[in-house]
Formats: sequence, C-alpha cells, structure tokens
Amino acid sequence: MDLSGFLAVARGDEPADVALRNGRVFDVFTGETIEADVAVAGGRIVGMGGDYEAKEELDVAGLVVCPGLIDSHVHIESSMVIPYQFARAVVPRGTTTVIADPHEVANVAGKAGVRYMLSASEGLPLQVLVALPSCVPATRMGTAGAELTAEDLLSMADLPRVVGLAEFMNVPGAVLGLPGALEKLEAFQGRVIDGHAPGVSGKWLQAYVGAGPGSDHECTTTDEMVEKLRLGMYVFLREATGAKNLRDLLPAITESNSRRCAFSTDDRHAADLIEEGHVDYLVRLAVSEGLDPATAIRMATLNAAEWFRLHDRGAVAPGKRADLAVFTDLKDFHAAMVVAGGRVVARDGEPVGDWTQPEAGDLAVRDSIHVDWDKVSLEIPARGERARVIGVSPDQIVTQHLVESPKVAGGLAVADVERDILKIAVIERHRRTGNVGLGFVRGLGLKRGAIGGSVGHDAHNLTVAGCDDVSMMTAARAIGEMGGGLVAAAGEEVLASLPLPIAGLMSDQHLEAVRLQTDCLVTVAHELGSELSDPYAILAFLPLEVIPALKLTDQGLVDVEKFDFVPLWAD
Amino acid sequence: MDLSGFLAVARGDEPADVALRNGRVFDVFTGETIEADVAVAGGRIVGMGGDYEAKEELDVAGLVVCPGLIDSHVHIESSMVIPYQFARAVVPRGTTTVIADPHEVANVAGKAGVRYMLSASEGLPLQVLVALPSCVPATRMGTAGAELTAEDLLSMADLPRVVGLAEFMNVPGAVLGLPGALEKLEAFQGRVIDGHAPGVSGKWLQAYVGAGPGSDHECTTTDEMVEKLRLGMYVFLREATGAKNLRDLLPAITESNSRRCAFSTDDRHAADLIEEGHVDYLVRLAVSEGLDPATAIRMATLNAAEWFRLHDRGAVAPGKRADLAVFTDLKDFHAAMVVAGGRVVARDGEPVGDWTQPEAGDLAVRDSIHVDWDKVSLEIPARGERARVIGVSPDQIVTQHLVESPKVAGGLAVADVERDILKIAVIERHRRTGNVGLGFVRGLGLKRGAIGGSVGHDAHNLTVAGCDDVSMMTAARAIGEMGGGLVAAAGEEVLASLPLPIAGLMSDQHLEAVRLQTDCLVTVAHELGSELSDPYAILAFLPLEVIPALKLTDQGLVDVEKFDFVPLWAD
Repeated sequence: MDLSGFLAVARGDEPADVALRNGRVFDVFTGETIEADVAVAGGRIVGMGGDYEAKEELDVAGLVVCPGLIDSHVHIESSMVIPYQFARAVVPRGTTTVIADPHEVANVAGKAGVRYMLSASEGLPLQVLVALPSCVPATRMGTAGAELTAEDLLSMADLPRVVGLAEFMNVPGAVLGLPGALEKLEAFQGRVIDGHAPGVSGKWLQAYVGAGPGSDHECTTTDEMVEKLRLGMYVFLREATGAKNLRDLLPAITESNSRRCAFSTDDRHAADLIEEGHVDYLVRLAVSEGLDPATAIRMATLNAAEWFRLHDRGAVAPGKRADLAVFTDLKDFHAAMVVAGGRVVARDGEPVGDWTQPEAGDLAVRDSIHVDWDKVSLEIPARGERARVIGVSPDQIVTQHLVESPKVAGGLAVADVERDILKIAVIERHRRTGNVGLGFVRGLGLKRGAIGGSVGHDAHNLTVAGCDDVSMMTAARAIGEMGGGLVAAAGEEVLASLPLPIAGLMSDQHLEAVRLQTDCLVTVAHELGSELSDPYAILAFLPLEVIPALKLTDQGLVDVEKFDFVPLWAD
Repeated sequence: MDLSGFLAVARGDEPADVALRNGRVFDVFTGETIEADVAVAGGRIVGMGGDYEAKEELDVAGLVVCPGLIDSHVHIESSMVIPYQFARAVVPRGTTTVIADPHEVANVAGKAGVRYMLSASEGLPLQVLVALPSCVPATRMGTAGAELTAEDLLSMADLPRVVGLAEFMNVPGAVLGLPGALEKLEAFQGRVIDGHAPGVSGKWLQAYVGAGPGSDHECTTTDEMVEKLRLGMYVFLREATGAKNLRDLLPAITESNSRRCAFSTDDRHAADLIEEGHVDYLVRLAVSEGLDPATAIRMATLNAAEWFRLHDRGAVAPGKRADLAVFTDLKDFHAAMVVAGGRVVARDGEPVGDWTQPEAGDLAVRDSIHVDWDKVSLEIPARGERARVIGVSPDQIVTQHLVESPKVAGGLAVADVERDILKIAVIERHRRTGNVGLGFVRGLGLKRGAIGGSVGHDAHNLTVAGCDDVSMMTAARAIGEMGGGLVAAAGEEVLASLPLPIAGLMSDQHLEAVRLQTDCLVTVAHELGSELSDPYAILAFLPLEVIPALKLTDQGLVDVEKFDFVPLWAD
C-alpha cells in the first residue's frame, strides 16, 4: 500500500483492513493504558480511536494490545529447529521480531549459512533480523567450517534485514586493536555493534565501548550492569536455558536507566521455549519479581527498537508495523492473539492462518558432515602416567583442569567407568582433515555406551564421549549417517537419536517433536548412568576453547587460561 | 585519529590529548552525577576515571561536566547573523549542536541558500546540522526567490551534516496527500522528518504522523502535547522570542514520557540570545519551574540525539564526540567552560582559542535585492469607500481582518495618522517582477516616517509601512542600497539602519553589534510614534500568508481563512 492509499484510510475516506475493537492499548511512550480501537491498513497501524471503518473486525474486549515483543539477541540454532519452526513456537507467545545471530550455522557454512538463515526466514510472521556473527571462527585452535572476514561481513551489511554486527566476543582483539578484530570494528563504525564482555570493567571496558560495541547481554551482577549502563551500553537482561541472569540484574533497573535495558533469550532449548516461553517469559518473570509492567514491556519493545534503530516498530502508533501482542493482562502476559504485519497469525498460543514455509535453498547447509572414517581412530596410546582430564560440573559450561592416572589396557589408555573417567573425542567434520582430538572427561557419569552430537560449540565438530570405542564409533557414525544430530549408543546399537540435518545443528521438524526426541535422548543417557540433567548440552560445550578451564577441540586439548594447546599427558 | 590510535589512549598506552580533572560528570544514562576525570583524544571521549595521562590538563574542580547542549530546531537567520557569529554567541552558553532549518535563506536563494548555510558553518566549534526546509515557498500567493521541489530536497539529503526534513508545515498537503507534499514525504520515508502541526489533533494528527513527521515544536497546551507524545511524536518545548511555550508545557512532562521531549529555540532574536541565553536558558527556565535537572539535561542532549539519530553525541561516554558543557551547577547552568570536538572553545561566556571563520562562498546569497525601482509606485487610487485594513495587536503575529474608510486625497487613498491607518507595501525583490502589494495597516502607531525591512516572512520581500510615500520610498530604497536590512526613515532621510547583506536576512557583524543597531532602530521607531516593543518584528510577519487573518504579499491582500486573495476595496 502506497502512502496515498494509507492516508486515505487514515483520514477515514477508505476502510481499514482490520480493526481491533474494545481493547486497551498500552502506550509505550507515556506508559498509559488507553481504551481505544486500533485500525490497521497495508500491514501498518493507521490510528487509534473508535471511528475507523474496517473490512475485518476483531473483538479484543478485556485484552491489552501491546507492541509485538522483540528478542534483542538470540541464536535460533540453539532451539535446534529451523527459523520456520522457531517462528511457529515463539510468535504465538507474542514475539514478532528477533535479532538473530546465526553464529552457529556460520561456523559450519560461513556466508552460505547466514544467507540460509535469511532466506529460511523470508516472509515469516516473525521478523527475523540478523546481526552478523562477528567472531567466526572463535579461535584458530579449533577447525570450524568457515571463516567470516571483515570483508565478508561488510559484503552482507546492507542486505535486507541485516541490522549490524553481533556479539563482539573478541574483547582482547577489540581493546588491543588486533588485526582481524580491528578491521571488523572499523568496517562497522557508525553501525550497530552488539557487545559481549562478561566481567570486563574499568579501562578495558571503556576502550571496548569506545571501539564500537554498544550493548551487552553478559552481565551477571548489578555492579557490572550499572557500570555498563553508565558508559552508554544497552544492557540486555538474559534468561537463557544455560545462563539465567534476569533475577540477579532486575534490582539494578531504575526509572532513570531503564530506557537502556532490553531482553535477550540468547540460547533457549526446546523444552524451555515450550514450558516457560520466549520473551513473554522474561517479561512475566520480571513483573513477577516486581518490575513495573510498563517498564518490562518497554524493555521488550521500544527500547530494543531504539537500540537497533528499528524506527518502524516497538510501539502501537500511526505508521508503525502492525505487529501486536494482545495479552490477557499485564501480569500473566498470555498472548490471546498475535498480529504480525497486520494479519492475525496466532490465537491462544497456537499459530493460525497462512503460515507458508519459506522456500529456502538449503543445499548449502544440508549434508554438512564430511568425515573420512578410515582416518578416524579413537585409540589413545598410553604415553605417560598422568593425563589431563576435563572435569565437568552439573549445569556448568566452565570445566575443571584435572590430572589423573588413566586406566591402561594393552598399551592403550581407556575409559575407567569405576572412576567416571570417560573418553572424549572431537572429530573434525567440515573438511575431512582427519583431525581427531582425544582426551578424558570426568563428570558425565555414563556407566556404559556413549553419547554424541554434531553440536559442539563453536566449531561444531562431532563430539562424542563414552565408555568404549565401539559405542563411541557407533554414535559418531550414526551422527554422520543422519547428516548431523544427537545420538546415544551402546555397543553397535543406536539407542536414541535426533536428526539435525540442517548444518548438523537444526531439525526441520516441529519444536514439540524435537523436544520429545531430546527428552528421549536424555532418558536413555540417564539409563546409561548419567545423572546430569542434560548431558548432551554439557557435551556440546566441551569443545568451546574460549570458556575455562580445559577444553578439547579437533586439534587437541586447550588450556583456556594459557590460551594454548597442552599435551594430554601431564608428565 | 584512527581507531588503533584511539584504543592506545583508551588502554592507557598513550597519553590523552586533554583531561578534565576533578569535576563531576553528569551521566545521562543513569541520571547520576559521578566524580570522575574525563579523558579526550582525537576529538572524542576516551573514558572517565582518574588514571589517564594527558598532554593538557584542565581543572574543572567544583564544576559539572555535561554533554554539549543540542537545539532541536532553530532558524539561525532569525538571529540576523551568519552562522559564524551565531556560533560565537551560543557556543559560550553551552550549545554545541544545533539542528538548523535554513528555511528563510532558502526562500531567498533556494538550494544555494542551503549550501551557503552548510559551507558558512563548516568546521565551526558549533556543529550546525541541517534539516532541509520542507515548504519553500510557503504558498503560491507570495513570490519567493526560489522553490525547493522533492527532487531538490532529495538531492541534498545525503550531504554531510544534513539530518532530514525540517518542520513539515503543509499539514493539509500531508494529510490529504496532495501533489508536492506527498512527493516530499515519500522521498524522505525512513529518514528523519520534523513536524509542524499547531493545534492539529484526532484523525488528522494520526494521518499526519502516519505520513512521516515524527516531531513537533508547535504545542501550546499540555493536552496537545500529551496527544502528540502518545502517538510517538517527539515534542520539542519551544521558547522563542515570539512564541513562548515552555512554561505552559512543563506540567505535561512525566518520568514516563520525558525521553520523547527536547528543546527548541526556533526563532530567538539577538537581544534574547544575549540577555537570556540559548538552550541553556530553556534548561535554566525549566529547572527553575521545577523540572528535575537530570530530565532537563537529557532533553537538551540525549533525547535530541536519539530523535535525530546522532549516535555520536548527547552523552559523556567513551567514543562520543568530546562536546562538553561544563556548568557551574545544575541550577544556574552557567557554562564556565565549553569543549567542542575536544578543544576548549569558550570560557566564562566568551569564545576562546581558534575560531576561524569558514571561507564560505557567499556570492550566491549576497546582492539579493533585485528591484526595478522605476516600476515601483506606492500610490493607491481610491476605488471605493471601504478598504480592508490589517489589524495589528502587540506581540502577536496573528492579525485582524478590519474594514475601514481610508482617508482620500487627490483621488488617492493615503495614510491617516490620526486614526493610525498607515500604508503598507510589499515590494517583490527577488526577480524584478515589479510586483507591489499595497494595503493599509492599523496598530503600528507611527505618527511620521516609515519603517521597513527585507525580512518579510516567508518570501522575504521588502516590507515597508509608513505615514507617507516619500518616507516609505526612502526606506525601501535604502534597504535596496544596503543589499538588504532594516531601516527607519522620515521624508528623504534615513534615521537608522541595520545592513543585512546576506540574503537580505543576515549580518556578518557580531551579534552584539546587531543587537545595538536593532535597539537603535526600535528607539527611532518609538520616536516616530510607535508604541510596539518591536515594530520591525511585527512588520516582518505581515506578509506571512499562512498565519490568520489578513496578510499582504507582493501579489496582494490574502484572506488566510479563505486561503485566497481578496481585493483591497471591500465594497
């Protein structure tokens, strides 16, 4: 609809497409809740008030019409479903815009991965905006499937729906002005650059902010949050599956600083999305903890829109996108109806109406497991008495750097189930390099069999841990045969699996289906002896060479404090 | 300074250019006042805190370091000085950025006028950003020197320092989607469009907002202001010389809506700038009326920066421009020191340091008075009994539509000093058309002589009123000989004058000099019999054919309610 046609409706000369009648509108600009109809035309809000004629009438009596919610930072891949399925899960909760960082798929497929996420979300009721992954690969100590240079990133900066640069994790690179990092920051000066600076403070934080990053979703304390706010950073309060910071940070929010606060779900697994919700859950949680509902809604709408310079959304006002979350109240925040681009797309938590799956060319991100199995051996010759062992703690991605004497049999170091020292292998799966990182891990608790997956942050190589090589190889090969996924195996038998054929990271099934298969995988792992709530989630972070203390990539063991490789044998 | 060099200073490896020591920093993000040094390098803020080495030390003990103030909407021409002189007057008050709408000079010289304002402000300590004049000419009922089409405007939209489109005064054009107006709005969709919608409300206001304009500085009541805020408009509280709205609007500001409020000086004359101040005066006035100082400062800094998408300013924070207003306190707001682009540019109300006047090519805006005097006759043949008379009220630009019987002598209608019915002439001065609009005016109060000027909104033709044709012609010709200006004359003698050689609107003298000459002109007008506080200011608006009720352009009398010409003779 052109401006002329829009104005005809706005003046009342032509009927609106849709009118939401009898509701209360939450006005983010004044904090008021105002009784007013809302008229929509051409996917945009025409006006509020009682006297617009409309072709379609929607009765929203007793409900509160809010702007659609915005997730300021999310990795869709962490839900393990493609954007279409993700959208069908979160839009009915009231989310109409996400700033997605396709960091995981980019580590597998580079620019093609980013392009896939854009095309796979084209035209969805969920506006999937993309912040470009700034740090692919995470380091040179693991073998990722791709690299994104400053030039690569800049070549995508002006694509539709690209908002800027995502979480700039390379803090030393930024502060020290190291090559690569500096080029990326220079390339994006003047654009939106999201930050990622856990625990960084003082001069380093100021230098980091001065270098460009203007937001952060990694705060864990109110002191850290206030320091960042003072420097002008937007702070996204995060409540992910693994990292839950919202409750800790709420006390720092004041009337004076709240306009710089927003919400991030970062990484939320299927079960949490289904059981708790998406941004609606963060809003609900914040309000239940005492935050003023008006402030909470603004954090989920206007504030995020302002940081990302999305001048067309974040409010129920003339000319804005007609993205509306119609909630039962400002306490429970159950979305009775969701309107996206002027269409009703969900009611009572379920998608309704036309939800055409985008025709995304996904060839570049399918068939992403490339392993020459003849080169893969999991044997660890015993070359010493004392070996380094990755120590796992429940619900932590930080590990311990242990040293133990492994069990030896036939000249080989092997798993020792009695002492919960299992073998772990990270098998390069992008380029058939034949790289296999081998080591030991304590804390997974398996008494037999093996578990594994093609989700292994950030390089996403095959990561398998188990009690014997046969089970581990069964798991690894099964993952390969599925084109990626999660597997539990014992001996030569696959006990449970979840195929993740898209980049080895995402399923194209419903989120519910993924959730059921994940539950099944966890149940099997528990039957195999593990007591961790989700051993696959823990396993997926054991290759992440930027999180302390001891990690394993396809290239070997990494002492994260030293930021360098260390030998398996400690003697 | 490149990013690498900036980071070296930020880390503390290299000394800063300047450090402001021992002050208190006002943090716009949290509303706190924090004891901290401020380090500056390469014209940008490096960081806060005590341990940055610096090449130059500035002691600001006891003072409050605020971001430089931003005027969200101003016509520099209204001060009657060129940008250089304007900057020297307002920067010492703490203003470091203005959003200037060169509407007046554009009415005289079109694109060349806009370009002149940009080049004449290039490199000044005052950042003169330009919002492009959206409505030149105001109407077709007066003869302006130029027209700016949608195409003209778009051709300038991406020039450095251009922020968008200025006050979109053509409300009917926007709402009704009329040609010209619609094209301009379409051309600037997605960019900043400032509004101008005095008294507009309801559906028309919503349509107007939906069409693009997102701010307004014309509110006169709190109800009007709240309605506009609710629709997402930024509201600039204006305190001009002629239109003083700040006190009336302050009660509408709440914690919840204040982030959408800012300040505008719009049109402030020399005397007010000197006696009261600039944005500092608005801040001071607001605080003295009870507004929280933190809110007031934000309105003058962060809020304005956010609306105009000036992500590089509006706060004292790493990476932002080092534009700082260092105030004695948060009550009187006297700027003890002003830093612009990292340099100290004013102290204690006076410019200091290097203030090079930009080398602006001003040929296109000099010599702007083009009148074929042989064609000019001020005689009004008596063609009836009753004539329309413009009724002037003190300090009002709105006039009355009167009908009187003018004095007749020798077949000509002439001024009648006894009844305070003077003659008024608007002489086209751009294109030698020979157009002369003639009429009568009551309320100026001259008992002899004439006053006149080349400032005559918006077309800025020569506007002269007086008691006899000889005095009027003396004034008119004197204006022409000066290349523009204001004049008081009696008989064949010029009694006082102010040359305005730049477009007939601006002097290149100091603001103080302009003020003294203006005072002199007013004194003379008083001696000639006028009792108006500034009869030249009133006279300058008598040609403005969009302000009720009866106005005179070079093309004739305009009944503004009918939006059409009316004959002088009412019979």
